[in-house]
Amino acid sequence: MNYSEMSPRDVRALIREKKITGPTAGMSAGYAQANLVVLPADLAYDFLLFAQRNPKSCPLLEVSDKGSRTLHSIAQDTDIAKDLPKYRIYRNGELDGEYTDVEQFWREDLVSFLIGCSFSFESALLEAGVPVRHIEEGCNVPMYKTNIACTPAGVFHGNMVVSMRPLPYDQIVKATLITGDMPRVHGAPIHIGNPEAIGIHDLQHPDFGDMVTINDGEVPVFWPCGVTPQNVIMDSKPPFVITHAPGHMFITDVKNVDLKY
Amino acid sequence: MNYSEMSPRDVRALIREKKITGPTAGMSAGYAQANLVVLPADLAYDFLLFAQRNPKSCPLLEVSDKGSRTLHSIAQDTDIAKDLPKYRIYRNGELDGEYTDVEQFWREDLVSFLIGCSFSFESALLEAGVPVRHIEEGCNVPMYKTNIACTPAGVFHGNMVVSMRPLPYDQIVKATLITGDMPRVHGAPIHIGNPEAIGIHDLQHPDFGDMVTINDGEVPVFWPCGVTPQNVIMDSKPPFVITHAPGHMFITDVKNVDLKY
Repeated sequence: MNYSEMSPRDVRALIREKKITGPTAGMSAGYAQANLVVLPADLAYDFLLFAQRNPKSCPLLEVSDKGSRTLHSIAQDTDIAKDLPKYRIYRNGELDGEYTDVEQFWREDLVSFLIGCSFSFESALLEAGVPVRHIEEGCNVPMYKTNIACTPAGVFHGNMVVSMRPLPYDQIVKATLITGDMPRVHGAPIHIGNPEAIGIHDLQHPDFGDMVTINDGEVPVFWPCGVTPQNVIMDSKPPFVITHAPGHMFITDVKNVDLKY
Repeated sequence: MNYSEMSPRDVRALIREKKITGPTAGMSAGYAQANLVVLPADLAYDFLLFAQRNPKSCPLLEVSDKGSRTLHSIAQDTDIAKDLPKYRIYRNGELDGEYTDVEQFWREDLVSFLIGCSFSFESALLEAGVPVRHIEEGCNVPMYKTNIACTPAGVFHGNMVVSMRPLPYDQIVKATLITGDMPRVHGAPIHIGNPEAIGIHDLQHPDFGDMVTINDGEVPVFWPCGVTPQNVIMDSKPPFVITHAPGHMFITDVKNVDLKY
């Protein structure tokens, strides 16, 4: 089955039927995929405000109505509790389990936040001939905690997490302009060149994901990362949170190219 | 006194001392000005969600902490209750009075929303040689209620209000690209050409502001307008709201050109 050419709706149907339970990278090519964070309503205002104040690391694509498992804007006929291939449940900031659907855990006070994902800009980079090393090497993107403080909001505070892609000097401007034009999926790099300048002291050992090869003459380029909001939320140890499992994203009905309009 | 060349901080100081009580158009040239909506905290989540769902008409520049009269991001050393030249207080959706400061009305449950303003893109249009008719004619921009539904959020729902600027055919592309590059101050036009298509049946009689001359060969171009959120809020008749008085904006420390970064 070629999931790359299937519509988001058809892929989500297979996910809902548990015929797809793995990572979604490359599925429904050209359509935006999203990070998921589901929080109880009493934390929703603080998190919505955190996202408003930190749009680079936390670009919201949609926020559900309280208790609703459907969306209105980025996907139609969807069930948030079933349409991702794998979920994680955290209790008091600790991972409590992974599930292929979370209907049994759903509550009337839950609010779902769908957050832009760098999968979108990676396909734009590849299309433009910019290399994406972790895709070449078939692993997860390397991610690092930085010393760049997010703007706090209510109970949520913490530092930005970044993803790193090594680039040859002559591709940095192109990559900056391409991603800078896609602010709803993290936008332009937050830093180019010197890991120490943003508090990364050991580039070889990322805090999340896998290390990739940096060739001679290549520069590490850092983008705001969608792990930031999850990281910040877990730090505040909320009693109950649902997220996607890493790489097991929500596939939207919105084309990457339409996210800017 | 040439307010155009004064810094935002200096202009705000004169406003705080009540030495400036009039409209702020043209003051601190190059710096963004903002619409103000101050709501009780029990409405703040719904309004924040409304803004997230309707970023074209309601582009948030900053949201204060509850009860705080200071800001952190778009201005330093400011007092929201004193640094605008004129405020309006609405009770149950009705205008209750205009004041040069609102310190006496401040409450610990108030949240301030600062919303991008088309003053920012008008200066970019003028700089690029695109005519802005209401500036030429020394009046307020014409604004219209449309049939374009905003995405509802909680208690807030209603249609988009648009502002109109007539343009010669050969300036429409330039104006679209310039404003499209400034999404935090309403961005690109929402419609070009046919008022009826967006539910405007009497172009000569705007719902807000003043009519301007449309010359032969000119096309009416419509942008999402910052009056939308105020209009939507008033429709829900909240018991207590503070806003700026029309034209009497909050002058930020952020240059227009920096709003996109």
